[in-house]
Amino acid sequence: MKKSLGPKIVVGATVVWVVGTYDRGGRPNVMTAAWGGVCCGDPPCLCVSLRKATYSHGNIVEQKAFTISIPSAAHVTEADYVGIASGRDTDKWQTTGLTPVRGELVNAPYVAQFPIVLECRLLHTIELGLHTQFIGEILDAKVDDSVLGDGDFLSIEKAEPFFFVPGGRDYYAIGRGIGKPFSAGTSFRANQKGRE
Amino acid sequence: MKKSLGPKIVVGATVVWVVGTYDRGGRPNVMTAAWGGVCCGDPPCLCVSLRKATYSHGNIVEQKAFTISIPSAAHVTEADYVGIASGRDTDKWQTTGLTPVRGELVNAPYVAQFPIVLECRLLHTIELGLHTQFIGEILDAKVDDSVLGDGDFLSIEKAEPFFFVPGGRDYYAIGRGIGKPFSAGTSFRANQKGRE
Repeated sequence: MKKSLGPKIVVGATVVWVVGTYDRGGRPNVMTAAWGGVCCGDPPCLCVSLRKATYSHGNIVEQKAFTISIPSAAHVTEADYVGIASGRDTDKWQTTGLTPVRGELVNAPYVAQFPIVLECRLLHTIELGLHTQFIGEILDAKVDDSVLGDGDFLSIEKAEPFFFVPGGRDYYAIGRGIGKPFSAGTSFRANQKGRE
Repeated sequence: MKKSLGPKIVVGATVVWVVGTYDRGGRPNVMTAAWGGVCCGDPPCLCVSLRKATYSHGNIVEQKAFTISIPSAAHVTEADYVGIASGRDTDKWQTTGLTPVRGELVNAPYVAQFPIVLECRLLHTIELGLHTQFIGEILDAKVDDSVLGDGDFLSIEKAEPFFFVPGGRDYYAIGRGIGKPFSAGTSFRANQKGRE
């Protein structure tokens, strides 16, 4: 039996991404965002939504560039902190010990300590209400050697991304493998029904 | 040491959502999408990107409505199958045993067996290239009694959403709790550095 909860963001779990930007003075900033995802395969694009009130929002509008650094479970404390402090009045790098690295392809910094980094140029800005959605084209993915497996494939067990649950009491680590994509479902093919 | 992999979608793990639509004949369809996320807090909105070639794409354009049903780990086989078969020539419901339920607020069906459902009306359609991004306003969240904890909070341990890793060899279940949002990071406050 399903219970109606109203127009609430009850979506299971979301990504935890850290957005890197420069302000007009060239100061690097980072903030954590959970409203984001992939939005196009070709060109490869991702989207992330920020409130207008954030310092990072203005930085993206000005620089037309940002990075996404994806923290591991080991960085949950740092990732949480950079989501609650503001770059307007705090130096999040000095406070946390995280290190900004200038992007190679875009004018935005990324977090040296996080294992996955995406350099993005701003493609679209969509005003939705409380949040603005920024769509960025992924110009390069940079991944720590230590989280790559055979053939330069990401080892998700080593990268250990984690998740946010809107309204929830915890961040959650990634868990066990449960089935093969584009394969698990083929067991239904023997029984496949045509459309009438 | 970071290795550059080029403009690839290496983003850790993404959501696994099942999009429900009606075609012009009123036939319900479902397909799985991993390119999606939350994109606004107020109004509450989510986004999901589909290739133009999919049957669901045309359905959303016509009906201006869709649902998102979020499967549990127990449904990984069904979720994988509805992502690889097409509603143009197969009856995914009959094949899998999943049951369509007409949405209360929008003209789109959801999956009875999946524990979390969001009814969405189409707000924006953004052409990005291979994929079209559909932004939907969440008009209602419906959640199975069995995955609600105290005070109508979603129990993520019971809902058991799972994730897709682009290029990866498995779907992954959600794992252990690792820290409290808007709290874990406050330990840095004692050491907080102001901006120079």
